[in-house]
Amino acid sequence: MNTPVTLYDTTLRDGTQGEGINLSLGDKLRIAERLDQFGVDYIEGGWPGSNEKDIEFFRAAANKTWKHARIAAFGSTRRVGVLAKEDAQVQLLLDSLAPVVTIFGKTWLLHVSEVLKTTPEENLAMIRDTVQVLCGAGREVVYDAEHFFDGYKDNPEYAIKCLLAAQEGGAGHVILCDTNGGTLPNEVAKICADVREKIRVKFGIHTHNDGGLAVANAIAAVEKGAEQVQGTINGYGERTGNCNLVTMIPNLQLKMGRPVVSQESLSGLRDLSLFLDEVANQRHDTRAPFVGESSFAHKGGMHVNAVNKLAKTFEHIDPATVGNHRRILVGELSGRTNVFMKAREMGIALDEKDPDTREILQRIKSMEAKGYEFEAADASFALLIRRIREKTEPAFYLQEYHVSMRNSPVRQYQEAEATVKILVGGEPFYTVAGGDGPVNALDNAMRKALATAYPQIQNIRLTDYKVRILDSNRGTEAKTRVLITSADGAKEWSTVGVSDNLVEASWLALADSIEYYLLDQKVSGN
Amino acid sequence: MNTPVTLYDTTLRDGTQGEGINLSLGDKLRIAERLDQFGVDYIEGGWPGSNEKDIEFFRAAANKTWKHARIAAFGSTRRVGVLAKEDAQVQLLLDSLAPVVTIFGKTWLLHVSEVLKTTPEENLAMIRDTVQVLCGAGREVVYDAEHFFDGYKDNPEYAIKCLLAAQEGGAGHVILCDTNGGTLPNEVAKICADVREKIRVKFGIHTHNDGGLAVANAIAAVEKGAEQVQGTINGYGERTGNCNLVTMIPNLQLKMGRPVVSQESLSGLRDLSLFLDEVANQRHDTRAPFVGESSFAHKGGMHVNAVNKLAKTFEHIDPATVGNHRRILVGELSGRTNVFMKAREMGIALDEKDPDTREILQRIKSMEAKGYEFEAADASFALLIRRIREKTEPAFYLQEYHVSMRNSPVRQYQEAEATVKILVGGEPFYTVAGGDGPVNALDNAMRKALATAYPQIQNIRLTDYKVRILDSNRGTEAKTRVLITSADGAKEWSTVGVSDNLVEASWLALADSIEYYLLDQKVSGN
Repeated sequence: MNTPVTLYDTTLRDGTQGEGINLSLGDKLRIAERLDQFGVDYIEGGWPGSNEKDIEFFRAAANKTWKHARIAAFGSTRRVGVLAKEDAQVQLLLDSLAPVVTIFGKTWLLHVSEVLKTTPEENLAMIRDTVQVLCGAGREVVYDAEHFFDGYKDNPEYAIKCLLAAQEGGAGHVILCDTNGGTLPNEVAKICADVREKIRVKFGIHTHNDGGLAVANAIAAVEKGAEQVQGTINGYGERTGNCNLVTMIPNLQLKMGRPVVSQESLSGLRDLSLFLDEVANQRHDTRAPFVGESSFAHKGGMHVNAVNKLAKTFEHIDPATVGNHRRILVGELSGRTNVFMKAREMGIALDEKDPDTREILQRIKSMEAKGYEFEAADASFALLIRRIREKTEPAFYLQEYHVSMRNSPVRQYQEAEATVKILVGGEPFYTVAGGDGPVNALDNAMRKALATAYPQIQNIRLTDYKVRILDSNRGTEAKTRVLITSADGAKEWSTVGVSDNLVEASWLALADSIEYYLLDQKVSGN
Repeated sequence: MNTPVTLYDTTLRDGTQGEGINLSLGDKLRIAERLDQFGVDYIEGGWPGSNEKDIEFFRAAANKTWKHARIAAFGSTRRVGVLAKEDAQVQLLLDSLAPVVTIFGKTWLLHVSEVLKTTPEENLAMIRDTVQVLCGAGREVVYDAEHFFDGYKDNPEYAIKCLLAAQEGGAGHVILCDTNGGTLPNEVAKICADVREKIRVKFGIHTHNDGGLAVANAIAAVEKGAEQVQGTINGYGERTGNCNLVTMIPNLQLKMGRPVVSQESLSGLRDLSLFLDEVANQRHDTRAPFVGESSFAHKGGMHVNAVNKLAKTFEHIDPATVGNHRRILVGELSGRTNVFMKAREMGIALDEKDPDTREILQRIKSMEAKGYEFEAADASFALLIRRIREKTEPAFYLQEYHVSMRNSPVRQYQEAEATVKILVGGEPFYTVAGGDGPVNALDNAMRKALATAYPQIQNIRLTDYKVRILDSNRGTEAKTRVLITSADGAKEWSTVGVSDNLVEASWLALADSIEYYLLDQKVSGN
């Protein structure tokens, strides 16, 4: 029978070493709560020795009740030539009150001599002593054997001795770290098999993605007996990042028969991934295994046909298991089937024989040629179909808008203003509003103009506003695509606008958003 | 001794199945030329049976001389119940004049019965006949065994029979495809070992990344005797994408001792990856193994210290081998060392004891708190240091700017205009200019204002303009970061601006770009 595998998340520590990842104390606490709910076994909160924010994190964490996870503080072995109990950094780890303490130490002689500048024996003593002091203070201790695989390849006996030193000190787990991320899976498998024979304490695996193999290496280690997987959500981390737990978890649970979280948690995996991107202000990786927006998206006409017949033909798992969903892409390569399935996905029944359908297909193709993409703008797609099929009267006609912005460092003021002239049911509305910038002012003026005729638009909030420069090598003349997501508390919808003028692209997406909302309201009759 | 491994690139066919990947005929030809120069062995240009553009591609390709690569046309086995030589799609493959023809066929009985709706025997005949007709016409034939691993797991005898049918027909390679991308590396290894025993013809591997294991699976296959690797540049492809050749190539060449391209080509790997992103209009994956902008970027103070002492301590390969470079990140976690190394990287010697240095560190921290990032804006970083250390006089002072844009669908016109009031050496310049949009107009007006005093700014071209919405959930009020790259023909530099007003953020980045250029010119004295 397989031994259980525990999940050790280091998003809050190793993850923040990634380029562009900066988390406030509040962010870190929100993320920790979310990871706890999700069912992660260990949450490494930070390194109290490295900065004040992490000390505060552990202060706050000690006063919280955690549902499932154990909180871990990260640090290093004692310094060369001091007693572990007198080492200031070791003391900070104890002061953190974290029930688990993870310390890293050297296992590669190159580092012992070149970076630590000490003897092999002193390094072993540093490991053993530090683990012992922490265990003596009642902590569960995890020993991270830094550069384990490189160290083992250089000198297997010494690398194993380092693990044994941690074992003697009383560590609960020793973790084999592929710190530089350059090891191949078959090497990991061979080395783990040897480790399994030479030590008694449980071992775990900590990989980096420098060779694109962090997940594969962690899988190889688990197959050879690793009982803990360390990684980060979305693979955040220094350089190319750490083992991506969002990829690792479903592989463990769905493919290897090693359950690590509840089935219910697993179905929230995509949400967890998006939540982290949101808090860490990272762009969602649309191609991320299991959870990406594109990961169950079918484009080729033939694949779409086959999936239509039998999902299993082109899907390795049911997307719902990980909280994802199938998508049918509408694009250049798409046959009629794609457009039909996409429409069906949105609850619109298209008739193949209807002449409108040909017009819809042509319109989509010509807009795509201009730079439109409907893949992430369902509402604009639906609007396009309904305008053609239902010959719907627009909710409003734009006559003119004008935006203006002045910045005067000398007179110390900045202002942005927009005016909008709109016809609603033949009646003109001419409004003006300010804002933080020209687009915000335009948004405000348009809402003001429409508020009399359509008071319900006050419910619309813009929840996301994205700008993509399409041909960015054309500098400030480049074509711009704006994607807007709106919500009214009950539902969300996304619209798109394209222009070589950012304000106009924003206007188009804003106008579609409101038009879609009003049309949708009319249909549902509220 | 290891047998040679050939590289088969399907960026132009399978790659274009990826969401958002659309390539024109011109794009496809440019990419093919680049792949040929790089040293790829096979270039799959498209599927002549699926669209007119691909037919034209092969027409153009037939008239070109290729340095190294063989061009492959992709298609399927003949239809059920027709003679291969009378199948219209097979005829299109021959008409393409491509020296290599790759056909895919079924190996999974589920697909034979549910999608093809035919018998197992007819499917075998379809494979054998089609390969035979194509070989008879003098083509080198590659047989892609679709869903091979799923088919094998379902019925190993039948899956092998399909490979034998292709072998009997005369195929040069049979390719084991993990079409749904859900297979684990140890399964791939086991199945490949069995295949190696049962067939005589060379076999290759074609993987997808649905489990995040496409590269690991290809490596496992090569270790078990696969002699061809199929994949795409940057891993483009349907759903989560194909095996990323940009990751696979250095793994093969640097780690597995299986050279596939020249050392000189390998050192152009990062350029190849960026070129493809540029042509396919994809965002560069900064964390891409080997070639990402962040892939040799060091942030943690301690790692930076160690790398400073000995690069090998935290780098699995020398970044130059793949055309990449080490970067030192300046950010919240960065100690003084990072700022020093970053400055040194840019040729600025900072003195640790200098009081200016403390001011520089504080200023960087406070700007980062506002949303600035200097990681991709070297020129703004250098400017910040020089402003503090050299007390340089700004090249110009902004007094005021005003932008305005009107769009009138009724009167059918759009206009954007900007005015700028600038002081240069005490003298005021007040200019106005138009543009495609407000930012472009502002750019034009500023250049006009500065042209008298600094005619050399006419040499500056904007080569990239990127907009990132930082807190995009705040809708059109969100804070915006603008990154601009400029060039003068000889060099490139990047600057950054942040504001909750996109026009102002753009202004800040534009102003830094020109200021940096003028200062740099003054120093180099030309």
